Amino acid sequence: MPISLPPPSEEAEAENTLAAIGEFGLIDRVTAGRVQPATTLLGPGDDAAVVAASDGRVVACTDVLVAGVHFRLDWSAPDQIGRKAAAANLADIAAMGAVPTALLVGLACPADTPVETLAGLADGLWAEAGSVGAGVVGGDVASSPTLVLSVTALGSLDGREAVTRAGARPGDVVALAGRVGWAAAGWAVLARGFRSPVAVVAAHRVPEPPYAAGPQAAKAGATAMIDVSDGLLADLGHVSRASGARIDVRSGALEIPARLRDIGRALGVDPLHWLLTGGEDHALAATFPGSPPEGWTEIGVVTDGEPAVLVDGRPYAGGPAGWDHFVR
Amino acid sequence: MPISLPPPSEEAEAENTLAAIGEFGLIDRVTAGRVQPATTLLGPGDDAAVVAASDGRVVACTDVLVAGVHFRLDWSAPDQIGRKAAAANLADIAAMGAVPTALLVGLACPADTPVETLAGLADGLWAEAGSVGAGVVGGDVASSPTLVLSVTALGSLDGREAVTRAGARPGDVVALAGRVGWAAAGWAVLARGFRSPVAVVAAHRVPEPPYAAGPQAAKAGATAMIDVSDGLLADLGHVSRASGARIDVRSGALEIPARLRDIGRALGVDPLHWLLTGGEDHALAATFPGSPPEGWTEIGVVTDGEPAVLVDGRPYAGGPAGWDHFVR
Repeated sequence: MPISLPPPSEEAEAENTLAAIGEFGLIDRVTAGRVQPATTLLGPGDDAAVVAASDGRVVACTDVLVAGVHFRLDWSAPDQIGRKAAAANLADIAAMGAVPTALLVGLACPADTPVETLAGLADGLWAEAGSVGAGVVGGDVASSPTLVLSVTALGSLDGREAVTRAGARPGDVVALAGRVGWAAAGWAVLARGFRSPVAVVAAHRVPEPPYAAGPQAAKAGATAMIDVSDGLLADLGHVSRASGARIDVRSGALEIPARLRDIGRALGVDPLHWLLTGGEDHALAATFPGSPPEGWTEIGVVTDGEPAVLVDGRPYAGGPAGWDHFVR
Repeated sequence: MPISLPPPSEEAEAENTLAAIGEFGLIDRVTAGRVQPATTLLGPGDDAAVVAASDGRVVACTDVLVAGVHFRLDWSAPDQIGRKAAAANLADIAAMGAVPTALLVGLACPADTPVETLAGLADGLWAEAGSVGAGVVGGDVASSPTLVLSVTALGSLDGREAVTRAGARPGDVVALAGRVGWAAAGWAVLARGFRSPVAVVAAHRVPEPPYAAGPQAAKAGATAMIDVSDGLLADLGHVSRASGARIDVRSGALEIPARLRDIGRALGVDPLHWLLTGGEDHALAATFPGSPPEGWTEIGVVTDGEPAVLVDGRPYAGGPAGWDHFVR
């Protein structure tokens, strides 16, 4: 039987907030004992960090996550939110064909945020960064009524050319690495007040981007690549417009997992819709002049014609193709 | 006489908000027509940017500004806020002895934020970055009840060693480049409802960090350096602790500008307090083994002893030495 502790006094609780330990206390707390990778030449604690950029170039991107918009503290544990914020950025680095080296974290949050919540966020950021050999090298924290997490990721192309969105050519094969639709199914489940099936809820909480597939695709000659964060059709739309070519997705090539089929049936949703329009799984989509490398699945072709993304030769009629943060 | 236009309809006003033009419309609006410096190898519009890091290293830092905390939209024009956000980061890069190359911008803001406000922010970010030869290479925007601006700056050491906070040695001279106390005086004026004197109000709205003094100090053999953002004593405290040495500031070496003396008299504040504890001017403080280079003013010495910052040999008794975002 667990020992029953008295509830903490109000004073003791207040001591566990950011207001009690302060900006510098928090920084000490979340940086102490972390082991930096070799690419971190100077880590947190100074005006700026110094990170190796061995081929004379650095890849960099920023992604912003807002409490209540991208995550909910009642749906996800703090470390899951940290992992998700890191993953969104690390996947963008991978989508250039690069290997992530470092994260910097801009955090705005209320002064009464529990230190445990912030320590959890930091743990998640570190865990996800560590999974690809990157470090958390710097950041800043400021007082705000809303919790906002702005993460910047740096990466290295190791001498390769960056794979942009603009290189898709008619005749190229369109291919996918990683999962699509899982996070969207998880969101649908959570939004209806359920906490299971665990697999899709977990996918919503912490994506599992196929990081290694990015550099792999670059080495295999990918002509264009993108991180699927807004939805497969929306993101292929970015490739289509940037490349000045049309993309035709073959829906039959998108295998619908039995799990998503079951959930779709239970919720009255066509699961294909989740695969085509759901973001946040951070799959990678790329175009190749020939067959894609191992681990990638062919899902369509690049054709001549005005930029557009078609599904089986027709405009997708199932609803909005993806996510815009401001237009509803 | 100006031509009198009818007031815009509610509908037309709504069209000028972020909700109306959307995330991608905003990105188009703020990136169109910008000229990138040569260090921007791939600019905005893809999953990530690519920036030159010619000596195989990149310097990186992040600073977060929150509406109502770091700036007020009724005190500052949007482009002034953009300049200030950029300056806070660019000064951190300079404080390492590096030259800024790029900014990335994480923006969280309400959907009904006027596009003009956001375009103004972007103009300010670009103007300040451009003043040091850097570009705005990427960013993200997300919906949030609070306007939060998280800026990441990148920079190049051009083959030099980074100047950290940890290298000050007993016998070194402490020197200052740039202004201190002006932004604090401006804040004091604005907080009392005044809009003048213009010089200090302008200093609060847009700092003028001595960017070139950072690399200059590095070349001149600076042993430690820091961006004065929390207040001179607080920031010298960081140098003192990191270096394991004591710093003694000579208050007589800090010339109090006549303007600050006048304002101090009017407001009943000792202007020296603004110079010693006011942040946000983004001066640079550094230690040198001998005389500092031109443009730097000697303001004290590094001595043996437990880490501490003294003023004229004694602990400063005028109040808190600087700013912590959460401890009041």
